[in-house]
Amino acid sequence: MKKLKIVLIGSGNVATHLSMALKNAQHQIIQVFSRSLENAEKLAKKHNAQALNQLSELVEDADLYIISVSDNAILKIVSQIDFTNKKVVHTAGSVPLNIFKENIKNAGVFYPFQTFSKEREINFSQVPLCIEANNPDFEQFLTNLAKQLSENVQLINSEKRKYLHLSGVFACNFVNHLYHIAGNILEQQNINPKILFPLIKETAAKVEKLTPLQAQTGPAVRNDTESLKKHLDLLTSTPEYQEIYKWFSEQIFIKSQSNN
Amino acid sequence: MKKLKIVLIGSGNVATHLSMALKNAQHQIIQVFSRSLENAEKLAKKHNAQALNQLSELVEDADLYIISVSDNAILKIVSQIDFTNKKVVHTAGSVPLNIFKENIKNAGVFYPFQTFSKEREINFSQVPLCIEANNPDFEQFLTNLAKQLSENVQLINSEKRKYLHLSGVFACNFVNHLYHIAGNILEQQNINPKILFPLIKETAAKVEKLTPLQAQTGPAVRNDTESLKKHLDLLTSTPEYQEIYKWFSEQIFIKSQSNN
Repeated sequence: MKKLKIVLIGSGNVATHLSMALKNAQHQIIQVFSRSLENAEKLAKKHNAQALNQLSELVEDADLYIISVSDNAILKIVSQIDFTNKKVVHTAGSVPLNIFKENIKNAGVFYPFQTFSKEREINFSQVPLCIEANNPDFEQFLTNLAKQLSENVQLINSEKRKYLHLSGVFACNFVNHLYHIAGNILEQQNINPKILFPLIKETAAKVEKLTPLQAQTGPAVRNDTESLKKHLDLLTSTPEYQEIYKWFSEQIFIKSQSNN
Repeated sequence: MKKLKIVLIGSGNVATHLSMALKNAQHQIIQVFSRSLENAEKLAKKHNAQALNQLSELVEDADLYIISVSDNAILKIVSQIDFTNKKVVHTAGSVPLNIFKENIKNAGVFYPFQTFSKEREINFSQVPLCIEANNPDFEQFLTNLAKQLSENVQLINSEKRKYLHLSGVFACNFVNHLYHIAGNILEQQNINPKILFPLIKETAAKVEKLTPLQAQTGPAVRNDTESLKKHLDLLTSTPEYQEIYKWFSEQIFIKSQSNN
């Protein structure tokens, strides 16, 4: 694959990490657009690229346009720019391919299924890259590009991608919030939350070898009603934690029963 | 520390993993008790130990007695055996030290803060071992022993240990149930749940470097109400998932606001 000249529309977490992976694969980001010129400049600097906050200044002849903005903003972008004869992708989980007008010759989706924070380095070779395109040639083009960045490239259509994104919200965002609650409970007792790290790591590692139902441990799966009651008593000052404790314990017990 | 002769009361996940770690540290399990002789035999075999299902057959002169049974069963054990002149510990998070009678000279707690499944090998050197004892000498004895097994030994009293155990239920058991839900959503769409592994791993790794509130991503923290609505629509056939989706999204948004 030749070295691509790429225009990046967006400067958030996904745009940042994806563009660095593209750079590492020897492609060139030539422009970075963001509504905030400051944000555009910050990312453009990493690529020696031009920073823009006006869509009218986008070059016409890039090899690929990557739209990596919030879901709502994608529609605004595609209604303001004529992508008819360009190659264009967006990077969103929950936005279907058909957000692109039908007359666009090469439209696609390039969805990295991972959680990105600016402060974290990511080993992009392990990030599942989910590809969709409106024609077989562009699908092949995107697949080839994706394989330069990651060992895990999959064709996923818009319908499935919605559910994939949804599953990620449970496995990442909600999990992360449980980490917050667990840490909060410890901080209240002046216990350093770092004591959780080995448990968090093992819980995550375990499901690569066992199914979550096989891996389950703790009072709920044992239906240890005495421990459950004790725990609920400890949570009286945080009724929202009590509520969620009840929900999970009930669900875990139900699942363990239906699994026996 | 001399090679200890240890009696193990219990044959579950904690008993199994802890006893193997003790064996690796050159201590000797001499007896394994379980209500089920079959279970006792299974674990005793790994130690060339005697398997028992009668408490009356326990030897009197072991260097340490480890009670590693369900919370409810601990009380039965301590009321049936005279530990007055023995060294004894239990391994439970939610059971206080004072479950042991006051006349026992050396009573303690040896609580490994980790999730154990029989099918999983554990690097015990990374498992936080939480120690409590009813006198300084025994505390030192248990600390020395613990340090042979793990690099992470902490003194945690009964009150704090309750909360520690509770935090683990959130960070492990409930997290694991979210992995189950995420996998279930994907299976319904014929997507292999393995696609979740890099996301699960990175989410777990991230909180070692960022606080969970800093690490948070996804539609709820962005208050992306359109995505939230779309996701709830995808969950109409599983009202319990809808319910929990709403709870987490609301909580994540509230926390992100109070954190700004």
